[in-house]
Amino acid sequence: MQTELEELAAINRGADGSCCRLALTDADRRGRDLVVSWMRNAELDVNIDRIGNIIGTRAGTQSGPPVMTGSHIDTVATGGRYDGAYGVVAGIEVVRALNARKVLTKRPLAVVVFTNEEGVRFAPDMMGSLVYAGGLLLEDALQAVSEDGAVLGEELARIGYAGSKRCGEIRPHAFVELHIEQGPVLDRANEVLAVVQDLQGISWQEVNIRGVSNHAGTTPMNLRHDAAYGAGMVTVFVRKLAQRMGGSQVATIGSVRLVPNLVNVIAREAKLTVDLRNSDDAALSAAEQELEAFLVEIADAEGLIIETKRLVRTQPVRFDDRILETIEQVAAKLGHGEIRRMTSGAGHDAQMMARICPAAMIFVPSVNGISHNPKEFTLPRHLEDGANVLLHAMKRIANE
Amino acid sequence: MQTELEELAAINRGADGSCCRLALTDADRRGRDLVVSWMRNAELDVNIDRIGNIIGTRAGTQSGPPVMTGSHIDTVATGGRYDGAYGVVAGIEVVRALNARKVLTKRPLAVVVFTNEEGVRFAPDMMGSLVYAGGLLLEDALQAVSEDGAVLGEELARIGYAGSKRCGEIRPHAFVELHIEQGPVLDRANEVLAVVQDLQGISWQEVNIRGVSNHAGTTPMNLRHDAAYGAGMVTVFVRKLAQRMGGSQVATIGSVRLVPNLVNVIAREAKLTVDLRNSDDAALSAAEQELEAFLVEIADAEGLIIETKRLVRTQPVRFDDRILETIEQVAAKLGHGEIRRMTSGAGHDAQMMARICPAAMIFVPSVNGISHNPKEFTLPRHLEDGANVLLHAMKRIANE
Repeated sequence: MQTELEELAAINRGADGSCCRLALTDADRRGRDLVVSWMRNAELDVNIDRIGNIIGTRAGTQSGPPVMTGSHIDTVATGGRYDGAYGVVAGIEVVRALNARKVLTKRPLAVVVFTNEEGVRFAPDMMGSLVYAGGLLLEDALQAVSEDGAVLGEELARIGYAGSKRCGEIRPHAFVELHIEQGPVLDRANEVLAVVQDLQGISWQEVNIRGVSNHAGTTPMNLRHDAAYGAGMVTVFVRKLAQRMGGSQVATIGSVRLVPNLVNVIAREAKLTVDLRNSDDAALSAAEQELEAFLVEIADAEGLIIETKRLVRTQPVRFDDRILETIEQVAAKLGHGEIRRMTSGAGHDAQMMARICPAAMIFVPSVNGISHNPKEFTLPRHLEDGANVLLHAMKRIANE
Repeated sequence: MQTELEELAAINRGADGSCCRLALTDADRRGRDLVVSWMRNAELDVNIDRIGNIIGTRAGTQSGPPVMTGSHIDTVATGGRYDGAYGVVAGIEVVRALNARKVLTKRPLAVVVFTNEEGVRFAPDMMGSLVYAGGLLLEDALQAVSEDGAVLGEELARIGYAGSKRCGEIRPHAFVELHIEQGPVLDRANEVLAVVQDLQGISWQEVNIRGVSNHAGTTPMNLRHDAAYGAGMVTVFVRKLAQRMGGSQVATIGSVRLVPNLVNVIAREAKLTVDLRNSDDAALSAAEQELEAFLVEIADAEGLIIETKRLVRTQPVRFDDRILETIEQVAAKLGHGEIRRMTSGAGHDAQMMARICPAAMIFVPSVNGISHNPKEFTLPRHLEDGANVLLHAMKRIANE
């Protein structure tokens, strides 16, 4: 696997070692060409669908829907070498291992590379799997326009990946995605593997606070309508809210902009973003409501006008219990004991596939939780452990 | 007075009615020329000193140091019509009133226009009075360079106000400055006048908070080092600190900049400014120390690196008790009863003059506390009341 990850990373590598394979660029094409060559060497039957997803299929002893694995190979502008690529390379490695041992499964197996998971060049993210699962019309996806004016459908044709297969024609028996965690939990806990039981629902809001600009020296504290103070209170509130709620609830104020943003002027405007996530939809809604009530309260107490705008709201995704249990059993059998069940805070193609088939994910550690960064790193033996669990889980599901 | 204020305001007036007479621009020159013509019409003996301060003197029945009043006529880029100009115009009005009644005072009187009080084009602010009081070398002031590359000394010569009189040659017997409040206190309290007993000391710090950037979804709350959260805590802390300390203590976070400032990324850096002011120097130092202790505490609790940089630190200024009492007695005699003693949160030329002679200030209300803004407004009858108190206070001090 290390050889393949290195070959992918060498394409368009940045001076700082970063990977830049934005979706449907020439760098993406070169990555795709490599993956297709590896698939063919592994005797997979390669098909490209109309959104450019690459599906390599290995026949089983019986016909019917395959057990599918895979991920994506596009990256952010200064990405790491494991995010996405690991799941694809490990999927091909699974096939190679079975080939080497001449093992055939009952059901067919498939390895997929989904188009444009990162969503950096073309929106939305997870596009290939979303179209595959029927959540986005192919026609709409093909008309997506990048900031540089490129049209997705044209770029797909240009790089030679406008396939002819109908999207989602193969409805898998099950889908298992292997991925690096992109967070610090496993690394901190010194654990090798986790099974992902769900993905958080995401709530993004923009909060606009309007107060009154005034002189920082001449305006008594009790006569202020300070938008910056409102922003500070919201920042402290969401932290306390997440801590009080516990569970998978996280809350982040990532962006704050003050107007006029001067040392000696009370801010008349603060624009901030609130990112709330929870794997329990009711809890996430409750968090949103608590925030709303708090905003009303401070608007009243401080004489501020506060408006919110919803930017994103997605439902949590719950993965399939039987697949989760299979992964756990296989991991235990391979000597990993009882592995952690966890929630993914990031989005993945598997959440789209969960709409059309039983799905789940396997995580391996990210050192220091760093991802979307050239410093992204996972120990080679953890990569091997993850691929091995994937192999045995797929075999078991395919033979059921 | 209204006519003169209107004539000054008409120079280089903005579309929104704002005044723009940045120091030593052509607009400043036109304002100066007007003021000099008014001074001469009021039979004042006009002298210009080397930093461009304009001093109009009216002889008394005895020679010796004059009782001086005055302020500045330069403005910020979108200023109002009263800040500074009122004190100058009212000073000339005082002389006119005495002329009309053919009243001579024992000591001479003087009306001064100080150069570059606002400090927008050239630093520092209150420059003319600072040089006058010996707090800044003339040579250094003349070499000040604006952002547009202009040298102060050259600009002074260009507009014809590089005078020959030695700065501070006349050490006044007393200095009284009449000014609009630029804050909401009098307007809210429905009061017409205040005597300013002191000016706040000012402490400006830049606080740099460094945390760790991470994914807002995948990073558990207890593993975060969130610079934005640090900034929020500081914002809430300084508000509580000022409220707990009471008195004249104010505290403002006016500027916050986050890096990378994105909705779904925990901020790795927050740069904010803290503005603390108090008329009691020991209390101001105590506020600084409490903030410092708090920063140490949250750096430790949150795993942040916090550094501070001192931007400004000035001592509070206490005005002269005898002048204060004289103003109070005069105001009472004119039917204003017991007027408020207050602290000025803004800097004024009078604080520099307090270094070399007994000084004090008189405030009239600013409607809604608005200043440095075309909406700056004071009722005409309040302008008259202020000028009248100034007239009688100067007369009394000059006749003592």
